[in-house]
Amino acid sequence: MGPGPINAHPRVLRAMSADLLGQFDPEMTEFMNQVMALYRPIFGTENRWTMLIDGTARAGIEAALVSLVAPGDTVLVLNAGRFGLLLTEILVRIGARIETIDVPWGEVVSMEAVAAAIDRVSPRLVATIHGDTSTTMVQPLEGLGALCEAAGALSYVDVTATIGGMEIAADRWGVDVVSGGLQKCLGGPSGSAPITISNRAAEYIGRRRHVERGIRREDIEDGQGPRIGSNYFDLAMIMDYWSDKRLNHHTEATSMLYAARECARIALGEGLEPRYARHRAAGRAMAAGLRAMGLTLFGDDSHRMSNVTGVHIPDTVDGEAVRRAMRENFEIEIGTAFGPLEGRIWRLGTMGYNAMKHKVLLTLGALEACLRAQGYAVALGEAVPAAMEAWDA
Amino acid sequence: MGPGPINAHPRVLRAMSADLLGQFDPEMTEFMNQVMALYRPIFGTENRWTMLIDGTARAGIEAALVSLVAPGDTVLVLNAGRFGLLLTEILVRIGARIETIDVPWGEVVSMEAVAAAIDRVSPRLVATIHGDTSTTMVQPLEGLGALCEAAGALSYVDVTATIGGMEIAADRWGVDVVSGGLQKCLGGPSGSAPITISNRAAEYIGRRRHVERGIRREDIEDGQGPRIGSNYFDLAMIMDYWSDKRLNHHTEATSMLYAARECARIALGEGLEPRYARHRAAGRAMAAGLRAMGLTLFGDDSHRMSNVTGVHIPDTVDGEAVRRAMRENFEIEIGTAFGPLEGRIWRLGTMGYNAMKHKVLLTLGALEACLRAQGYAVALGEAVPAAMEAWDA
Repeated sequence: MGPGPINAHPRVLRAMSADLLGQFDPEMTEFMNQVMALYRPIFGTENRWTMLIDGTARAGIEAALVSLVAPGDTVLVLNAGRFGLLLTEILVRIGARIETIDVPWGEVVSMEAVAAAIDRVSPRLVATIHGDTSTTMVQPLEGLGALCEAAGALSYVDVTATIGGMEIAADRWGVDVVSGGLQKCLGGPSGSAPITISNRAAEYIGRRRHVERGIRREDIEDGQGPRIGSNYFDLAMIMDYWSDKRLNHHTEATSMLYAARECARIALGEGLEPRYARHRAAGRAMAAGLRAMGLTLFGDDSHRMSNVTGVHIPDTVDGEAVRRAMRENFEIEIGTAFGPLEGRIWRLGTMGYNAMKHKVLLTLGALEACLRAQGYAVALGEAVPAAMEAWDA
Repeated sequence: MGPGPINAHPRVLRAMSADLLGQFDPEMTEFMNQVMALYRPIFGTENRWTMLIDGTARAGIEAALVSLVAPGDTVLVLNAGRFGLLLTEILVRIGARIETIDVPWGEVVSMEAVAAAIDRVSPRLVATIHGDTSTTMVQPLEGLGALCEAAGALSYVDVTATIGGMEIAADRWGVDVVSGGLQKCLGGPSGSAPITISNRAAEYIGRRRHVERGIRREDIEDGQGPRIGSNYFDLAMIMDYWSDKRLNHHTEATSMLYAARECARIALGEGLEPRYARHRAAGRAMAAGLRAMGLTLFGDDSHRMSNVTGVHIPDTVDGEAVRRAMRENFEIEIGTAFGPLEGRIWRLGTMGYNAMKHKVLLTLGALEACLRAQGYAVALGEAVPAAMEAWDA
């Protein structure tokens, strides 16, 4: 019950036991096409280029940034937590000129601040995190794409912590590239990063195409733009691999593709709206239970992610001892925190296969017992009924 | 029966169905430590830093090169096939000065030529491929490390196509960084890249350490060297993650780690020497069967890989039609080729779970039938007994 990686859905685990296929076997390429179609509704997009990066969620971020940014380009980063910082850490290695809008961990950036910063720095790219698990806050994104497009900028959003649990609306937001991971609300293992790319971004990336000499073909021309700084993360080559050209790049990670496909089939089978409602119920129940216990939540209710809840560690309590007791006695993992919040909050996830009523209730009961054992004056027996009531609210 | 990806071992497929674990769960970190220990004998090394890169084999190559090479560094590449070319394609994006020793596809580079080139260009790094599946040749590596060390150069070897099927002797070769993949002779899926790093290379990489701002700790100092050009592939941070520091980087790809662990357990359970002997028997049998059928092998017998065999497509035969007939009638995939060998040779793999007598015999029987159906004057009934005899030779 941490902020991810979480327990995978059993169907996803079983999907990975399927026999492998050759990478150009028609059955395999059909699976790749299915994955493209399955992830479009999950990203809220009609983008043709909707596919997988073979690596963890962080690999998806780096693939997007290294393909969208050339050395010397100005990038505006919304910096509101650890993963906003991560964007800057990746960008500095690409050689970007980085401009940030900095807000304290626990707050979000207003669209007015974004508009003012775009005017000030004229970025090639605006990059942000949708839900930053380090702060448990969700960044509002309505209107971001229009601001960027009016300024001639591209936009990138990381949705690792929200995809499959909160609505992703790539087309309505108007953002160009969005990437995520399986290991949170999609209920799969870390190791595959779904990504979607607008036509506008795909055209820009296509101008940076440089096909490897070992596999050049007459029907595929190089672009005139600056070469992308990574081979493995070169989205131009990866699009050629996922297109009808089937131009060989790396060997697709077959078992992880099976996992990604099954994650999406489960999500669409449940229905995206019911799934998001289930996550909201779980987050509401967790928050209500923690408050009923006498604890104080971290951050602003109006921007709280539904799938991870931050809660202050009481001053008299050893946070790591409670986490250890939870794991050793109850086999339940809850999250610690990073940076300025390290030792100050716990983070409790309600993601994917863990966003279930019984898991929320069992976690609250266990936490109550562990807090009591630490001598904290917890309100006994209040958390579970409060959570049950909030689940149905 | 292509040159990889191949059928995975059933135990590996089952291992991926195991429940996930939190990334800092003691059971998980113990699995990470086990993986480090399991891969040392497979790489033929005592290197402390023996671990996994979360991506395909190509990710392992890029992690090694981007961590070992800074822009402007001179790198000497042994260029004898598609994957030698791939090294140059990755290096050009890193901004390296690339020097190559070029030999025709199907030949290997002599140590004399390497010594002369090192003298001439004074590289920071010498990089090569052990077994290049595009040519089916294996590059001799005895003495490479001594040449590099005498010249103050580091060395890198890609063993994707040989690891688990032919001896890897990182310490005896004296090479610094070696990386591979699961999807060939280790009998697993693509998506995890085992890597080993010498202490000398680890010291160099450590001088390039830059810890992310979101997770800085007082006990971990940054180095003074040039920042590594990728965050995801930053071996300094990945080593910190796999060390007792457990400094968070990406979220370890748990299911792929289970797969990598099981691949190694199977290989060590069989015994490395018996396993290599099995691959030699399979390669010998495949080669003998193809010759008995009347076909001509590609390349030099003395440098042939034991786990993939190149064979000339007869002039009168449509190579792709035969491959299609093999797949559609027999559910057996054999490999096409790249670059100068495209349309000229097929590549038949005998890797990992496919390096078995019955699979070699069934493949030869099927190929004989498909060649005959194409009107080729195949020597009927000769291939299978020749292969059986060669298996036991």
